[in-house]
Amino acid sequence: MPDPSKERDHFVGVDLGGTKILAGVFDRKLKCLERAKVATKPERGPDGVIERIARCVREAVDDSDLTLERVKAVGIGAPGAVKHETGEVIFAPNLDWHDVPLRKELEKQLGLPVYVENDGNVCALGVHEVELEGKPRNLVGIFLGTGVGGGLILNGRLFTGFNGTAAEIGHMVIEVGGPKCGCGNKGCFEALASRSAIFRRIRDAVRDGQKTWLVEKLGPDLTDMRSGDLRKAIRNGDKFVEQVVESAAEYTGIAIGNLINILNPDTVVLGGGVIDQLADDMMAVITETAKDYAMDGTFKGIQIIASKLGDDAGITGAAVLANQESK
Amino acid sequence: MPDPSKERDHFVGVDLGGTKILAGVFDRKLKCLERAKVATKPERGPDGVIERIARCVREAVDDSDLTLERVKAVGIGAPGAVKHETGEVIFAPNLDWHDVPLRKELEKQLGLPVYVENDGNVCALGVHEVELEGKPRNLVGIFLGTGVGGGLILNGRLFTGFNGTAAEIGHMVIEVGGPKCGCGNKGCFEALASRSAIFRRIRDAVRDGQKTWLVEKLGPDLTDMRSGDLRKAIRNGDKFVEQVVESAAEYTGIAIGNLINILNPDTVVLGGGVIDQLADDMMAVITETAKDYAMDGTFKGIQIIASKLGDDAGITGAAVLANQESK
Repeated sequence: MPDPSKERDHFVGVDLGGTKILAGVFDRKLKCLERAKVATKPERGPDGVIERIARCVREAVDDSDLTLERVKAVGIGAPGAVKHETGEVIFAPNLDWHDVPLRKELEKQLGLPVYVENDGNVCALGVHEVELEGKPRNLVGIFLGTGVGGGLILNGRLFTGFNGTAAEIGHMVIEVGGPKCGCGNKGCFEALASRSAIFRRIRDAVRDGQKTWLVEKLGPDLTDMRSGDLRKAIRNGDKFVEQVVESAAEYTGIAIGNLINILNPDTVVLGGGVIDQLADDMMAVITETAKDYAMDGTFKGIQIIASKLGDDAGITGAAVLANQESK
Repeated sequence: MPDPSKERDHFVGVDLGGTKILAGVFDRKLKCLERAKVATKPERGPDGVIERIARCVREAVDDSDLTLERVKAVGIGAPGAVKHETGEVIFAPNLDWHDVPLRKELEKQLGLPVYVENDGNVCALGVHEVELEGKPRNLVGIFLGTGVGGGLILNGRLFTGFNGTAAEIGHMVIEVGGPKCGCGNKGCFEALASRSAIFRRIRDAVRDGQKTWLVEKLGPDLTDMRSGDLRKAIRNGDKFVEQVVESAAEYTGIAIGNLINILNPDTVVLGGGVIDQLADDMMAVITETAKDYAMDGTFKGIQIIASKLGDDAGITGAAVLANQESK
């Protein structure tokens, strides 16, 4: 019988974002033991960022009083289109990456198997497998942050489609001719309900003379505005911010109504920074609107919930990916 | 060895519509031998309609020089929400049906196993299994008729979701605040690109003084206008009709862009009366627009095609259903 203290029975999950890299060490039961965080510094290019990912993984493992020899595999959620089979990042706009062989390079640096998947997919996997214990058969994950990420669990498994790019729900058009989106089109869900969309509406209104608690606290340029500031503004009675957030919640509800009509999942789970900070202000409006827009009979028994994983969704899902893929 | 002429090796596929019932007899290779058609007469209520379905099935079987003893099972595509397990039609607005035990009643009348599924799902199944020989792994079917039906084949199998109501793609909102839809919401795909939507736009414009070839041919009330009349109008140089049809094609392209972003299928297939008549005028615009709206990298290798099954899509898919379910 092998000495259990020498088994490769841990997984590292990495959440690669445009500003920060998070790594978490998970035991065989997918319990998180330790986390580490480093700045991404995308300006250093793919090689520089991959070195920083390796450093973040080593730090998290060391903080767990373990060595890399105790790690079976590393999973990574990357912010863009990923070729799952090869672990290449085809395109990641926030990192300015094109065709980066992330898996290959990181395997070289760590000497461990590495698995790469889109970050929205990874978050959905984390929520599904760990938070919801694998119970929902069909789940749509929606993550409202700087952009809008998504992930689909269909028939109990991650669904990635033909080119591996399924669940780009942020670029579902729900208002033809609506506000311009980063993707070049207009009226995408992301251009109506992401943090960037909310912030843009607030900044535009302030420029047009709108008064808000946010200007009192952050100055007229609203520098360093965060989702949490919106929550504080609403708590301080700022009706303008409340109305902007409510509008984003309505658009989110319409997007969910669409997804329920298209996929009829049993579970819709929301996460991401906007939801982590504003769930109390948004969830009731989101659910009510989704119900209005879902066809008669389709909504019965469907749960719409806010994830409790918060910032851990990405590392958790990446650990699940590492576990599933290395089996 | 059984006498082959006595085997139960045929299937009947039924397409139950709001105005007509079609039945087709198919051999074990799913080749259609004969078709029959009767008026639906929904005003006679569920019992009256179910009797007419039974009559239509008997006629088609008799016209094939067969008897019901040679039929293994009957499949039906019904225009509404269906509880697949029990074969109940939960809600079918065009028939004014609520909770009709279609399977049970028809089995009583025919003495054969009956399987019921939503008509859009059935059409997608027919196109996938017969026209495309089961090849696409992930297919989205879009059927533009009086309304907009849909069907999803995911991982090679019909996907119906939690309540069996998936693929209600006609009620995906793509223009918040847009034209009113029969479902009560505004800006649904169906309210922008179905035959009803196209006809409404034409009638509204004529009321406002728009001149069109259609009025010359059909009179000022445009009574009995059909999809084929639109084709004739365009062939006769009617720029107004051409522009209305092009606009419906653009909305269809946007809807397909959304579905590609969400599901990343390998195949999108269009059908229904509008496409059967107007494919030449619509398909190029549909494909170009879908490409514009699909995210970079998601569109690669995806085929968008018009089904050649025409009016046979429903009966064919219903026969496939009967075959698959009775195995």
